[in-house]
Amino acid sequence: MRIQYLINGRSGQGISPMDRGFAYGDGVFRTLPMRNGKLKDWELHYRRLQSDCAVLKIACPPEAQWLDDIRQLSKGVDEAVFKLMVTRGESGRGYAVPPVAQPNRVVIQSPFPVYPATYDSDGVGLHLCQLRLAEQPKLAGIKHLNRLENVLARMEWVEATYAEGLLLDASGNVIECTMSNLFMRRGNVLVTPDLTRCGVAGVTRQRILDQAGMLGLQAEVARFDLATLQTADEVVICNSLLGVWQVRSIEKKSWPKGDLAQQLREALDIGGSTFA
Amino acid sequence: MRIQYLINGRSGQGISPMDRGFAYGDGVFRTLPMRNGKLKDWELHYRRLQSDCAVLKIACPPEAQWLDDIRQLSKGVDEAVFKLMVTRGESGRGYAVPPVAQPNRVVIQSPFPVYPATYDSDGVGLHLCQLRLAEQPKLAGIKHLNRLENVLARMEWVEATYAEGLLLDASGNVIECTMSNLFMRRGNVLVTPDLTRCGVAGVTRQRILDQAGMLGLQAEVARFDLATLQTADEVVICNSLLGVWQVRSIEKKSWPKGDLAQQLREALDIGGSTFA
Repeated sequence: MRIQYLINGRSGQGISPMDRGFAYGDGVFRTLPMRNGKLKDWELHYRRLQSDCAVLKIACPPEAQWLDDIRQLSKGVDEAVFKLMVTRGESGRGYAVPPVAQPNRVVIQSPFPVYPATYDSDGVGLHLCQLRLAEQPKLAGIKHLNRLENVLARMEWVEATYAEGLLLDASGNVIECTMSNLFMRRGNVLVTPDLTRCGVAGVTRQRILDQAGMLGLQAEVARFDLATLQTADEVVICNSLLGVWQVRSIEKKSWPKGDLAQQLREALDIGGSTFA
Repeated sequence: MRIQYLINGRSGQGISPMDRGFAYGDGVFRTLPMRNGKLKDWELHYRRLQSDCAVLKIACPPEAQWLDDIRQLSKGVDEAVFKLMVTRGESGRGYAVPPVAQPNRVVIQSPFPVYPATYDSDGVGLHLCQLRLAEQPKLAGIKHLNRLENVLARMEWVEATYAEGLLLDASGNVIECTMSNLFMRRGNVLVTPDLTRCGVAGVTRQRILDQAGMLGLQAEVARFDLATLQTADEVVICNSLLGVWQVRSIEKKSWPKGDLAQQLREALDIGGSTFA
């Protein structure tokens, strides 16, 4: 499958460099999978797109337009990844928001990322990123288009032994990984980092928080540091595409194989990475 | 004059939504004026574009290409603003930088911004922004495309009584304004905020630092808070387009008319805003 996209429902076009998404990263996005011709967790993704737009005071295009775009791109396609992007639209030079901005809507269809089969079956190792996430409460949690920190963090390692990079904030709190959220299990308590000062609140993170109880786990959102993480019984990372992977090592610390990642994948009917 | 642009030297095209500048703000920019057919401080701007690219490990397009683009856009034009943008180029989904990325080069020609004549002659009032700049040493000083903080800060006021918004960091240090750098004069010492943890290091700031001595002023870079700023003898803000404006008020504090802004405009041959 080759990458295809629609801009405001039309193909064969480009984005104007006057678009504020390009100029300033003035927009938000969401990424979700289609499996067996069915979009996964559409309602949750769309609701999050809406609420992220609301924080930036961008008018989120209506649901029907996004679904039309996806339908148009996915004719004859059963398995694909969709990235939905919305920017504030175009304006002249300067940061001031124009009184009437017409948001630009972009839908990109890509093939599934291909991960080693062992990530699901055996778990993964994390690189500990040197970059510390900056704390900006006014943007925390939002999946906005200012993602240079993620890019710089991802540039820190090339070793295939690391599937992901762990990100702390400047104070040393564990926040997330470059493209995924993180949970640690301590006994029957499942804890994920507080994202009120930095980080991206993913839909899969929310689903795990909502449904942990069904697995007999008590879900909590809290601040904790790397030393605390390393005393956890189990650690997992998650996003809408990779599902859930167990973390087997961070720096010198390693964990034995556990059941949590598989339990979460089954309970939430998520994951099923494409295997290399 | 209408806004015109070239993408990699060509008109009539758009940016692909797969461009990492659009997807992640993975790029840098610079804005500079042309007056009487002559680019102002080209060498300084280009050098800064190069060094900002180097931090992000983006291959900066050669000087001759930028100058060709500007020449092509400015035929018959004597006065204009040029925005130079360079992104890492296009890639598939994901933060990982592709092994071979072909940077995209954008040059946008716009008319001069129009400011009230009183900003030069009488000075300006500043809104004190509620948003505090996040501290990210790995991106500090760079004029990159992640500018949502500036957008949110600029959304805080609509009153024409404020020409600019003053930005502090989370610790309360004075950093800059939304589109300009700041200096305070205390006796014969001219101090501008340290930008090693956040902020954008502008070319006009650098020129003032380099040439303050010629005005009998001792230039310093330091950390200071709002209370300290409010005890300054004079405060000015600067950028490549507006030149230098005196700050006459911040919150309850006001300053009498001073000479510094005019002295700096003359010494550096900068400014000369387009007057409303």
